[in-house]
Amino acid sequence: METLPPIALLTDFGLKDGYVGIMKGVIADITPHTSLIDISHQIPAQDILSGRFCLMNSYPYFPDHTIYLAVVDPGVGSQRRGIGVKLSKGYYVGPDNGLISGILTLDPAIEAVNLSNPRYWRVQTPSFTFHGRDIFAPIAAYLAKGVSLEQLGDRIGIDSLKTVDIRPIQIKEREIKGSIQYIDGFGNIITNISHELLSDDTWQVTIKGTNIPQGSTYGYVRRGELIALVGSHGWLEIAVNGGSGREQLGVNINEEVVVTLGL
Amino acid sequence: METLPPIALLTDFGLKDGYVGIMKGVIADITPHTSLIDISHQIPAQDILSGRFCLMNSYPYFPDHTIYLAVVDPGVGSQRRGIGVKLSKGYYVGPDNGLISGILTLDPAIEAVNLSNPRYWRVQTPSFTFHGRDIFAPIAAYLAKGVSLEQLGDRIGIDSLKTVDIRPIQIKEREIKGSIQYIDGFGNIITNISHELLSDDTWQVTIKGTNIPQGSTYGYVRRGELIALVGSHGWLEIAVNGGSGREQLGVNINEEVVVTLGL
Amino acid sequence: METLPPIALLTDFGLKDGYVGIMKGVIADITPHTSLIDISHQIPAQDILSGRFCLMNSYPYFPDHTIYLAVVDPGVGSQRRGIGVKLSKGYYVGPDNGLISGILTLDPAIEAVNLSNPRYWRVQTPSFTFHGRDIFAPIAAYLAKGVSLEQLGDRIGIDSLKTVDIRPIQIKEREIKGSIQYIDGFGNIITNISHELLSDDTWQVTIKGTNIPQGSTYGYVRRGELIALVGSHGWLEIAVNGGSGREQLGVNINEEVVVTLGL
Repeated sequence: METLPPIALLTDFGLKDGYVGIMKGVIADITPHTSLIDISHQIPAQDILSGRFCLMNSYPYFPDHTIYLAVVDPGVGSQRRGIGVKLSKGYYVGPDNGLISGILTLDPAIEAVNLSNPRYWRVQTPSFTFHGRDIFAPIAAYLAKGVSLEQLGDRIGIDSLKTVDIRPIQIKEREIKGSIQYIDGFGNIITNISHELLSDDTWQVTIKGTNIPQGSTYGYVRRGELIALVGSHGWLEIAVNGGSGREQLGVNINEEVVVTLGL
Repeated sequence: METLPPIALLTDFGLKDGYVGIMKGVIADITPHTSLIDISHQIPAQDILSGRFCLMNSYPYFPDHTIYLAVVDPGVGSQRRGIGVKLSKGYYVGPDNGLISGILTLDPAIEAVNLSNPRYWRVQTPSFTFHGRDIFAPIAAYLAKGVSLEQLGDRIGIDSLKTVDIRPIQIKEREIKGSIQYIDGFGNIITNISHELLSDDTWQVTIKGTNIPQGSTYGYVRRGELIALVGSHGWLEIAVNGGSGREQLGVNINEEVVVTLGL
Repeated sequence: METLPPIALLTDFGLKDGYVGIMKGVIADITPHTSLIDISHQIPAQDILSGRFCLMNSYPYFPDHTIYLAVVDPGVGSQRRGIGVKLSKGYYVGPDNGLISGILTLDPAIEAVNLSNPRYWRVQTPSFTFHGRDIFAPIAAYLAKGVSLEQLGDRIGIDSLKTVDIRPIQIKEREIKGSIQYIDGFGNIITNISHELLSDDTWQVTIKGTNIPQGSTYGYVRRGELIALVGSHGWLEIAVNGGSGREQLGVNINEEVVVTLGL
């Protein structure tokens, strides 16, 4: 049996209203044998940075040729472009608002198109507010079915793709200044400081004046205590054993994180 | 490869307790190759009107022959009937309590049966509280497998199917009075006033004494401001750019909505 | 078409962060045609007892040969074992912390291994915090593909598997003392008293001094009133018609439940 590439979905639609189901219905109507894998539909509303992180964090674990259908789209109905992007391990379909830009730090774009060809839209006149249903879902389905990127619209420069990011890390001799880039549902705090910067060293993390000891797993400290460790995604993470780092530190995305090296 | 019709699921069971998973296990045991698409499992508990809306709103986007397995069932264990209904584009399986009645405004029933034949139930003595598992899921699975509606029980009149609705709209020369029929997870307020009544006209919406300007997309107003537009589902919708219409107006389902035409 | 066994997933990861999607991506990379059925990903964080209950409660309804991939894993990164267990109707893959022990009350283990063979892990050096992605998901995928349990690690005694439970019921001549073992998302209270102990008898339930009448379905009492009935899972359940037993009684898991028989 031939293996069709799966479509991996990420949106901020939530699961209550059927919007995600509608997109899947549209896909099933075009390509019924394509398997669909949900990454998340609970990205905070219009939070492109969180969507960017979840896509980037998932990308290494999906099969080659996966089609990433991503809709966190505060600019829907405006002039922002809808794009299809070819990557070495798959395709991105969604708005051109930076959602893909985390993936691009791992795997550069090979080719990109503006999704301007209405032949592959669901209807010639898409709604102003639900391009997920009318443009992105059918495009992802046709890609899964074998339609080539070139057929979907006009080629655009890969350097023209919009990127978003929190502020970049600053590296001094014995200090790294970074930021919180994501907080997960457990309250674990994920920074933008990569494990590669922390190898071969003892180090200490400071957030909002609180020093947090270094460990390797949650059980390294007692329940209710803070610990800094390299998370499963490879980023420096601050957690509380059996609790919420977010609540204990009272922090949010973008808060500064300082690592002191070589203690 | 032959394409089996998918089963689309809608319930108020939530996703925490495994009830939906159990229904899917029952289906997989009968028809393992049928694909399952979730519409929603977060319909507010026992809220038939919201379930009715989500089914109606999803129906146009699913493949022909889809089987809609819907369980919002406050009357489970009472004398309410379980029904199977043939539509031009698929089947409905669930309680006879009005859940299907939104779909029927789009696509009239062709044929209906009372699901009285225990041969296609999971067990001869179903539980009093979980017909989703014991009757509706196996019936949907057998329909997907090709069992005919006639085998599932006694024919009933399509005019006998229970319908529910909020109060009907009232149309005067320059005024339409309608109601809120659904509020989605973003707080967008969806009325029962169809876009067809609003074509070729300027108009203004009033809810609870607040006048709301007309636009075409959320970005038409500044963040935090109210806008009235035709939503992706074709109904008049009131939204807040980047916020919640529900919270800003303090409204709920059934609240009156007045449209003044031809301003 | 040959039918591959499905993989049924249960975790406490929630659906927001993409952790479940990542596990599914890992599985799809190994066995793209295996169908995946979610039992729940909203088990309360680190709540092994609730996970144990949901697995046990789902087990009878899934197809033979189903692979249960379960990750509620407060001990991840510690010395707790990862295990694969063969049952008469399928396999369990997950931590050895008692999660499987509810299933084992229904269907004894046939054979068990410590998942010590890194050949079937995703990477030779798994993360300290996400064995779901690095060990359990790939193991489940290889089992689905036909790899035998013996290849996955060293045989361990089935009597060595860790079990957890709330305190056992006490049976006197006219009285049964049990406990609340689960509370579902509707607030329905599920005890550890089996329907088999309640057959052929009138009985009354007392929780925290409140006497609760016996019925067969929610509609047996008026809206807002308490009722004790045998739930769809076969356990004595206390519910409120159209409301939440948890809120009305102010109880939690482990609270004592007394049944007086033969009134």
